[in-house]
Amino acid sequence: MADSKPLPALNGNPVAAEALLQEVFGIVMDEAIRKGTCVSQKVCEWKEPEELKQLLDLELRSQGESQEQILERCRTVIRYSVKTGHPRFFNQLFSGLDAHALAGRIITETLNTSQYTYEIAPVFVLMEEEVLKKLRALVGWSSGDGVFCPGGSISNMYAMNLARYRRFPDCKQRGLRALPPLALFTSKECHYSIKKGAAFLGLGTDSVRVVKADERGRMVPADLEQQIIMAEAEGAVPFLVSATAGTTVLGAFDPLEAIADVCQHHGLWLHVDAAWGGSVLLSQTHRHLLDGIQRADSVAWNPHKLLAAGLQCSVLLLRDTSNLLKRCHAAQATYLFQQDKFYDVALDTGDKVVQCGRHVDCLKLWLMWKAQGGQGLEQRVDRTFALARYLVEEMKKREGFELVMEPEFVNVCFWFVPPSLRGQRGSPDYQERLSKVAPVLKERMVKEGSMMIGYQPHGTRGNFFRMVVANPSLTLADMDFLLDELERLGQDL
Amino acid sequence: MADSKPLPALNGNPVAAEALLQEVFGIVMDEAIRKGTCVSQKVCEWKEPEELKQLLDLELRSQGESQEQILERCRTVIRYSVKTGHPRFFNQLFSGLDAHALAGRIITETLNTSQYTYEIAPVFVLMEEEVLKKLRALVGWSSGDGVFCPGGSISNMYAMNLARYRRFPDCKQRGLRALPPLALFTSKECHYSIKKGAAFLGLGTDSVRVVKADERGRMVPADLEQQIIMAEAEGAVPFLVSATAGTTVLGAFDPLEAIADVCQHHGLWLHVDAAWGGSVLLSQTHRHLLDGIQRADSVAWNPHKLLAAGLQCSVLLLRDTSNLLKRCHAAQATYLFQQDKFYDVALDTGDKVVQCGRHVDCLKLWLMWKAQGGQGLEQRVDRTFALARYLVEEMKKREGFELVMEPEFVNVCFWFVPPSLRGQRGSPDYQERLSKVAPVLKERMVKEGSMMIGYQPHGTRGNFFRMVVANPSLTLADMDFLLDELERLGQDL
Repeated sequence: MADSKPLPALNGNPVAAEALLQEVFGIVMDEAIRKGTCVSQKVCEWKEPEELKQLLDLELRSQGESQEQILERCRTVIRYSVKTGHPRFFNQLFSGLDAHALAGRIITETLNTSQYTYEIAPVFVLMEEEVLKKLRALVGWSSGDGVFCPGGSISNMYAMNLARYRRFPDCKQRGLRALPPLALFTSKECHYSIKKGAAFLGLGTDSVRVVKADERGRMVPADLEQQIIMAEAEGAVPFLVSATAGTTVLGAFDPLEAIADVCQHHGLWLHVDAAWGGSVLLSQTHRHLLDGIQRADSVAWNPHKLLAAGLQCSVLLLRDTSNLLKRCHAAQATYLFQQDKFYDVALDTGDKVVQCGRHVDCLKLWLMWKAQGGQGLEQRVDRTFALARYLVEEMKKREGFELVMEPEFVNVCFWFVPPSLRGQRGSPDYQERLSKVAPVLKERMVKEGSMMIGYQPHGTRGNFFRMVVANPSLTLADMDFLLDELERLGQDL
Repeated sequence: MADSKPLPALNGNPVAAEALLQEVFGIVMDEAIRKGTCVSQKVCEWKEPEELKQLLDLELRSQGESQEQILERCRTVIRYSVKTGHPRFFNQLFSGLDAHALAGRIITETLNTSQYTYEIAPVFVLMEEEVLKKLRALVGWSSGDGVFCPGGSISNMYAMNLARYRRFPDCKQRGLRALPPLALFTSKECHYSIKKGAAFLGLGTDSVRVVKADERGRMVPADLEQQIIMAEAEGAVPFLVSATAGTTVLGAFDPLEAIADVCQHHGLWLHVDAAWGGSVLLSQTHRHLLDGIQRADSVAWNPHKLLAAGLQCSVLLLRDTSNLLKRCHAAQATYLFQQDKFYDVALDTGDKVVQCGRHVDCLKLWLMWKAQGGQGLEQRVDRTFALARYLVEEMKKREGFELVMEPEFVNVCFWFVPPSLRGQRGSPDYQERLSKVAPVLKERMVKEGSMMIGYQPHGTRGNFFRMVVANPSLTLADMDFLLDELERLGQDL
């Protein structure tokens, strides 16, 4: 029953709430930050799923637990979680722990608001606009639009939806059945979210025409042209090309100028999936890799990857100045976007998106940028390139490492060739045996907790490692460690 | 260039990083938590957008800033942000600050991993399954599937995509053009995300057939039946009914048993959008409002709303046991979901979703549940009902308050009738004048920072307030304050 006192637990008991949070923050600082980023600690503490279930005691019961038990649970969760901020976590396109970004995230979580109206998110509505403006400027646009999305896959879906809406505004109301069959184009090296998006948006995966990539993983513009003509000949209406700036495995950059020429010629929307490579725009030295991006209609860019802003920080940027984003998505909910508010309702940007409640993702990036400046971030990007280059040169000096190709970006793809396979390259089962090396080494490194690198097969190539140099706190010593550790782990193979 | 030393800034300088985070945590504790939840402090510090821009100095520059400047920026961001944890923030369907949930969120942000593979999220893969299992059990299912989504709108989209895929698996590959015209059904009181979703998924908003609601905002099953027959007569294929448990404005619960009967008869997927009302399932006393939910095929439920788990915490629950979620969405990316891993790859749940990287949203809810127990959460839910009831009874005692209707849930919809309008109900311009009251009072309360409540027009009704009783730390005094404050703010009207 309602009475004048708050419930037991912590609700309405600020002293207990503060004490709990102080304790938890201390645990986070010790276990997740200090130990979690320390090279003398493990990057992960492997447990088999069944054992981990026991250790975690996950069941949700009727009875609550004491503060002491809860603090122990916090320690356990951290202990068995992978330390993605650790200098030997090379497993994904994100890594590292930026203290400024984390500060922004803690503030975000505490303020706990939604990005939809100026009324409840005045700071973040203005901040989102400013951050988007800055990112657009780096693309080369002095005006435009954009939005923060829950990840690059959804950013890519927005691009598809906007492109088809611009071409066929009827689609919003009448659906795809009112439209001719559509076709979109992307290279075989594209991220898998393009096909997922095509399925989700009702286009179907068949609508994705796969364009050839060259030996380095870059889309072949001549084949794009070819595919467009073929699609038209088959009665489909091309509407979008999704180029990739920084492919997932090889880190390749599609030739955007040549692709933009093709798009211009055929009147197609050019989307650039720069989820991974977009942050290279910060570097005066390396941004030429994205030359032509200013000719795109939309760009997806995830600062949570190379800039370590924290999951998730993903933007869709648009060159459009006709309010396309809002026209395409708006539903004019009167309970949220009242038109008789006492302030300029153009500041209620929530109707631009397909979400209703939307997490605030701008503060972490903004605060990090304020602290480190564009120059500081540029240095970080340049440094990852330099470290990747160092790693490549060191690999060439060691006999157990074979590069898949010279990297263009900070994905260093290579095989570790164990002692028993060295000099056997011509032998009939060489590829098959080599392909089995990475899974074995991966198991060993994870079980020891010494480091984490991803591997994958790719086209006709068997499993190779994809080393990702992204963590801003990496040093040459971490590169040397990687090489030494693979040699150690694989010495008996 | 790469060298053996890390960059200046904080990267690789753990002492500076820790010092910064300690300082920021202190600011968060003082400004966002202590002051932010204190009734003697303002719920918001209103600034006009242009002035706020000046105060925030949002521009992102080349040069970084000193730690002192950054800390001041943190204070400024908090100062001008709305305090959604404040006991006088009644503006949205989320409010309050649960210390356990916040602890879970701080840990989540620090660990910064993605929910896609057991390899990098062992704790959270297992935890997500356990939380989903518990929520499914509350729905009434002993088996099934599910996933955490970035918000209820996207959860609703998943339901639509799954329903059409189950009926027409061809859709994934061949798209909607290969299908007959589809129709889905929802009441006029549904959340606007249903129409947004229909547009995004390529169905078009015309495919949404709007079913009548009764005077309390509940879907009329007889009209649903009628609409289905009509759609079929027009050549469309009905495939989904989206019922609402807890409508956005009125807090109405659609009659699920009767709707389930209709769905069963016509072989339609029943989705229940319980984003708002789902948490009522925790209450033995009130869960009858959702009777029949166990007959649904899918349920969307946002614990970030009534349970104050923190934005975003949203689940889609499924009764399906045929791996529909994965079949519908999987793209089998070989770089992420390698099949030759050393553990059971069924634990790599990321291919069930349309995202790639996915924020960890289970820990905040799990930790809160562990601490407070199902019983503690039940008490909180029951308490919100009791406080809403108290508020309604108090309103009846005061002449300035007119209820829109007796609430079924914790949305209390009412008009504040200012002195000049009392007793004028029959007069010709009464409705028009009454409709102008809420925007004026809203402006006054926001500019004073004393409280925040939402208002909206609704159907033929002019603007009324929607008071939401959700913050777990509310007391009777907060209810009294609301009434007194509206009388004070509106005494001259």
